[in-house]
Amino acid sequence: MPTTGEYDDRPINGERPTVAMSMGDPGGIGPEVIVKALAKSTDARARFVIHGSSSALNAAAGRCGIEPFWWRVEAGSALEGTTSAHKVVLIDDDPPEWRERDGDLRFDARPTKVGGELSFKWVERAIAAAKLPEGDPARADAIVTGPISKAAWAMAGRKKYAGHTELLADRFNAKRVAMMFEGPAVRVVLATVHIPLMDVRNKLTIGRIHDAIDLGAEGCRMLGIARPRIAVCGLNPHAGEGGLLGDEETRLIEPAIEAAVRNGIDATGPHPADTVFTAALNGRYDLVVAMYHDQGLIPVKMLARDRSVNVTLGLPTIRTSPDHGTAYDIAGTGMAEEGSMKSSIDLALRMIRRASAATGSSARRTVRPDG
Amino acid sequence: MPTTGEYDDRPINGERPTVAMSMGDPGGIGPEVIVKALAKSTDARARFVIHGSSSALNAAAGRCGIEPFWWRVEAGSALEGTTSAHKVVLIDDDPPEWRERDGDLRFDARPTKVGGELSFKWVERAIAAAKLPEGDPARADAIVTGPISKAAWAMAGRKKYAGHTELLADRFNAKRVAMMFEGPAVRVVLATVHIPLMDVRNKLTIGRIHDAIDLGAEGCRMLGIARPRIAVCGLNPHAGEGGLLGDEETRLIEPAIEAAVRNGIDATGPHPADTVFTAALNGRYDLVVAMYHDQGLIPVKMLARDRSVNVTLGLPTIRTSPDHGTAYDIAGTGMAEEGSMKSSIDLALRMIRRASAATGSSARRTVRPDG
Repeated sequence: MPTTGEYDDRPINGERPTVAMSMGDPGGIGPEVIVKALAKSTDARARFVIHGSSSALNAAAGRCGIEPFWWRVEAGSALEGTTSAHKVVLIDDDPPEWRERDGDLRFDARPTKVGGELSFKWVERAIAAAKLPEGDPARADAIVTGPISKAAWAMAGRKKYAGHTELLADRFNAKRVAMMFEGPAVRVVLATVHIPLMDVRNKLTIGRIHDAIDLGAEGCRMLGIARPRIAVCGLNPHAGEGGLLGDEETRLIEPAIEAAVRNGIDATGPHPADTVFTAALNGRYDLVVAMYHDQGLIPVKMLARDRSVNVTLGLPTIRTSPDHGTAYDIAGTGMAEEGSMKSSIDLALRMIRRASAATGSSARRTVRPDG
Repeated sequence: MPTTGEYDDRPINGERPTVAMSMGDPGGIGPEVIVKALAKSTDARARFVIHGSSSALNAAAGRCGIEPFWWRVEAGSALEGTTSAHKVVLIDDDPPEWRERDGDLRFDARPTKVGGELSFKWVERAIAAAKLPEGDPARADAIVTGPISKAAWAMAGRKKYAGHTELLADRFNAKRVAMMFEGPAVRVVLATVHIPLMDVRNKLTIGRIHDAIDLGAEGCRMLGIARPRIAVCGLNPHAGEGGLLGDEETRLIEPAIEAAVRNGIDATGPHPADTVFTAALNGRYDLVVAMYHDQGLIPVKMLARDRSVNVTLGLPTIRTSPDHGTAYDIAGTGMAEEGSMKSSIDLALRMIRRASAATGSSARRTVRPDG
């Protein structure tokens, strides 16, 4: 299938950044939000390479009344290296039993072993593209991932990785990573993520909190905020109320803030979590560092209105993803909102361009067959 | 000082409910928000009896350019029983050393022992008024408390009580109480409150969660919602993600929900806390039951815009209070916002009238000297 003519082909300063996209769990809403987001994308001065399945993408496009607009090549074929002239490329990895059913395609809208195997492989392929050396025409400048099912990954024997973040950290040998959530109203970094709440006591250390502050500051700089104002949450009600309600503030959070301040970061706290987000909303802070998942994500999701983006900090590449999951309950209905996926793509492109402008030495600046 | 003429004197159906108000810590913003809220109150078909200090109230009124509008009687004097003709009454309990300095009055805007002693005593007086038998003209139908300092209470030897709620539960012999937050956008009940986050594991039980659901349902009914739709939060990220991220959901929260449902309550969950508040905002639930302080208060305070109210459920009387603290940092500046105090008074009156209409047998229906 040829690409449609709706994309602006003009390169930016002779460069055209490439975004590697993994399709996510085939039974989830990943295929649909990718098709919708790319079909509506107004920023076409970039290339998008989707690692996924043509039958899933075709079915999603069909449901949404969208004409397929991607250039398809077989995964692993020699043609993989010949796609650089195309703006949207699908590296197709479609199990034969699925392809045969094409036309009346129904994926299971639930965690499955095959869904876990494939979605894992597609992320691996996107990572491999991002690890290619500068100058390689197949190199990806950023990774945008579709939602996967942790349960499906576990069924596929990939229980070791709680999610994308852990897999990315492992494959890039990243010593420290952090999740940042970029919403339309607040920006949040989490010190701990997908662990039982009562296990926070075992995971929260001065170093971990300091890394979240430090990586958060770096993330803000990647978004163009030269000297971010960072508010660090307390762990306990009222940030411990001067030691009356817990000691993690004095024992862990204050030392981490002090270390960050010594390193020139404008960090304050620990702030009571129930009031700090209002202050951030009012423009007082560029970033809030939360101690655990719900502390950060309750405000992000309440204010997100389907537009917040998850950014992995600490990797040698750029990685963004929508902040929603597979949403099996609405998968296959055509009702999925692509806003968060579209924001994820836009943010990845913004970060690529800012990084390129900052270093002045992106691979995209070298002349390429399509550049 | 006589009352001003700005209050509507008409009784409602022959009754005029009485609200007992404790002034809160004299060094905090309590006096100021009480003066401002009552001066602006449009609902004057009620009586307000303030337990506090005239020098603090006078100073607050002076700062805000408000003429004193309350009828003052000495605390403990025989005149205490003769105030029922007045709409706003101050039961004055002013230490001599303060009164002497009147005119150039400066309370310490910090926790002090004397502030703790007095604010504790004023709450006790409000409680005593609420405990009077029906028909007693001095009986209070509700208690509205000004913000106190827990540190000041501790200095005054009242460390046993972490706050108003614990003192009220003790004095009313309430077997179970819960804090409800009534905001303009969401309504929340907390299963645990002022404890270190990592102590939640020691406090959260099936019974405690069930009580929060049950008292929350009762609270909703007191507000006129006959069959409230109650969403119960999970404790862990993604509500435990099917047991992958903690077992409190299956071990404690699900059994509590099941017990509530068996008792005819429309309760669902456990819901992931990072998305349930958006659903509540969209009108899907009347109440969210949160497992711990910040889980419930982050959304309440973000959406409150200075108008949310704390309600104590489980008492034989009605008790509301603003959701803010003493705010020592702005005390004495005249900058305090009275919105939450005004909402607290309005909600107390709404609850009194609804209870009176429901039972048809309020003490206010008996003829009183002023009724």
